[in-house]
Amino acid sequence: MKKNVLIIGAGGVAQVVAHKCAQHNDILGDLHIASRTRAKCDAIIASVHAKGAMKGQGTFEAHAVDAMDTAAVADLIRKTGAQIVINVGSSFVNMTVLAACIETGAAYMDTAIHEDPEKICEAPPWYGNYEWKRRAACEAAGVTAILGVGFDPGVVNAYARLAEDEFLDTIESIDIVDINAGSHGRWFATNFDPEINFREFTGTVYSWQQGAWQANKMFEVGKEWDLPVVGKQKAYMTGHDEVHSLSARYSHADVRFWMGFGDHYINVFTVLKNLGLLSEQPVKTAEGQEVIPLKVVKAVLPDPASLAPDYEGKTCIGDVIKGTKGGKPAEVFIYNVADHKEAYAEVGSQGISYTAGVPPVAAAILIAQGIWDVGTMVNVEELPPRPFLERLGEMGLPSRVIDTRGTDRAI
Amino acid sequence: MKKNVLIIGAGGVAQVVAHKCAQHNDILGDLHIASRTRAKCDAIIASVHAKGAMKGQGTFEAHAVDAMDTAAVADLIRKTGAQIVINVGSSFVNMTVLAACIETGAAYMDTAIHEDPEKICEAPPWYGNYEWKRRAACEAAGVTAILGVGFDPGVVNAYARLAEDEFLDTIESIDIVDINAGSHGRWFATNFDPEINFREFTGTVYSWQQGAWQANKMFEVGKEWDLPVVGKQKAYMTGHDEVHSLSARYSHADVRFWMGFGDHYINVFTVLKNLGLLSEQPVKTAEGQEVIPLKVVKAVLPDPASLAPDYEGKTCIGDVIKGTKGGKPAEVFIYNVADHKEAYAEVGSQGISYTAGVPPVAAAILIAQGIWDVGTMVNVEELPPRPFLERLGEMGLPSRVIDTRGTDRAI
Repeated sequence: MKKNVLIIGAGGVAQVVAHKCAQHNDILGDLHIASRTRAKCDAIIASVHAKGAMKGQGTFEAHAVDAMDTAAVADLIRKTGAQIVINVGSSFVNMTVLAACIETGAAYMDTAIHEDPEKICEAPPWYGNYEWKRRAACEAAGVTAILGVGFDPGVVNAYARLAEDEFLDTIESIDIVDINAGSHGRWFATNFDPEINFREFTGTVYSWQQGAWQANKMFEVGKEWDLPVVGKQKAYMTGHDEVHSLSARYSHADVRFWMGFGDHYINVFTVLKNLGLLSEQPVKTAEGQEVIPLKVVKAVLPDPASLAPDYEGKTCIGDVIKGTKGGKPAEVFIYNVADHKEAYAEVGSQGISYTAGVPPVAAAILIAQGIWDVGTMVNVEELPPRPFLERLGEMGLPSRVIDTRGTDRAI
Repeated sequence: MKKNVLIIGAGGVAQVVAHKCAQHNDILGDLHIASRTRAKCDAIIASVHAKGAMKGQGTFEAHAVDAMDTAAVADLIRKTGAQIVINVGSSFVNMTVLAACIETGAAYMDTAIHEDPEKICEAPPWYGNYEWKRRAACEAAGVTAILGVGFDPGVVNAYARLAEDEFLDTIESIDIVDINAGSHGRWFATNFDPEINFREFTGTVYSWQQGAWQANKMFEVGKEWDLPVVGKQKAYMTGHDEVHSLSARYSHADVRFWMGFGDHYINVFTVLKNLGLLSEQPVKTAEGQEVIPLKVVKAVLPDPASLAPDYEGKTCIGDVIKGTKGGKPAEVFIYNVADHKEAYAEVGSQGISYTAGVPPVAAAILIAQGIWDVGTMVNVEELPPRPFLERLGEMGLPSRVIDTRGTDRAI
């Protein structure tokens, strides 16, 4: 039984995490939020109070911290008495925050894989390059570390495990499909931090097929999917975190990730990439200034948080899982549909941030209740999925399944 | 009778100017070239010698100078004894170099209008904002200053004057059409300094029609032209220097400039512009670095000079001029066709730089011979066009006309 939560980060996902923690502070205890810029944390706490989101009387405090500094994070964990750390800061801080949790015994969660700012798309499996190297240290310290517990990765990993547990005898392929059929009304914008968003697509597209890593280029492999609510949508095979853990547990299955992109996004991305403007390597201007082009692209694009008020439409994210049932070929689609406007009304964020931010709070509740407090490092598919999916349903992210008979129903 | 030439600038056009001056050093005398980076001047002189371009024994020296510093330029003019200055440096240095010429009595030439780095597309007529304000000073000092004596502006201004002198009784419209039907083989590149190239297209498109300035957006007005050699080509009404002087002399005519663009160029331009990456105003990165996006775009694009070795195909630039002859409607097209590969073989530059760089050397010869040494500030249409076009024909840029009878012939 753990309590008191420290949120690291103050972006769009942190906003959702803060609101959802506040709605469950009777279970989670004291709440704290820390980022490099304390004012951003203050603004999030102000929005929590403006919505009257705190379920009970309680603490919600803002702090400034350099999350790249393990000692500073560890000090903050001790000072706040936080036993659960939800890291939704930049993907560059995972390892320093994890180290602070191992040092202090706090439970650790994140929603995206660690990245070295100077490297794009390292060798697969990605978790093997950083996180899994600390698995033994977590085990030795009895530290619960749940990796990648956003929506994708996160909920989609639980969907795969649910198919294994309840729907299929064998699993032959897992295709994770992420469609955002919403519209933000801007000429162009990314739904997440542009730096992280573009970095996802500039490297090799790794998929796990026929028992080995396969390499493709971005936008090389496309496929039209016909999904509930959002209808027919074109999606492209994309490198993504969850492929790098699901391929370990389901090594006999093909594991692929597909993300929906409109032609406009692809065109803008292609222009920027081919010109070299998505590079994380510095260039020198004629005046001698050293500049990282990707950081300039980020500077001119809309702040993803600013999209929320005008965002309309729905997202559909789920797993198409094929295998056998009773010796016969069988297939299920387990999925969630979320609505941008509803997310904004509830927590002041758009749907993409909402689907990423609710799951780590559900996981925090399961840790607080002892259900997921496993005392070692795990990916989400290693944990019992039912309690997680049930909490998510109560918290605003209900899951459904089109089962082996083709019936579309709540799971 | 003037002699000794100082070239300001060391880019692609300066390379052509240097080679062409060397080919006529018997008339032009000592040659000097100066830019911020002396090594670039040394490289140009080395290429002149490598081609054996010097017609006679003579001086060709490299210098470092900050062309924004009038006193430094004036000192260099005095030190070198140059009586003719060909300014093919950045468009930002025209006024300081002109001031040095007025101070020392040297003749001044440039090939593009002055620009303030912090302003895009000022109020028309553009020459009125900077250059023409110094006309009285040139007159008082007896200084010859020939503005915009590249191809366009420059030769196309002489074409208009030639139509007035020889082909038409009245002029009702002048449409300057600039088509580059060549291919550099890169995914994307600009033929000139990207900063100047894009600045040309981000502002309002000014044209002179029905006796007044008309404002349009870039790529708003397009038209297919059917031209000699390059065939049918789509061109768009574009803001350009020569419209701002021809509209003064031919105030009863419509004066428009059209530049050919492929769909690929327009797409890349549109993406960069809509994202804000062509802005000359600084943005701040998340890390707090102040950066001018346009300078970063320039830094990632190919150096225009690097395109020359692979450039193939031809350019066609000319004036469609309509009016009357003997009381009847009449039309002429006066034009040049240049070849990228031939330009590279002769002077190591692509055709766009070649067409811009040969004319100021022809003008320098006319000044050295006293033919164009007018002792005041002029635009090219104010000077007798025949001697200029004849020199250009001898120097590699022959002009042709499709006359009022539809006959295509050398002028």
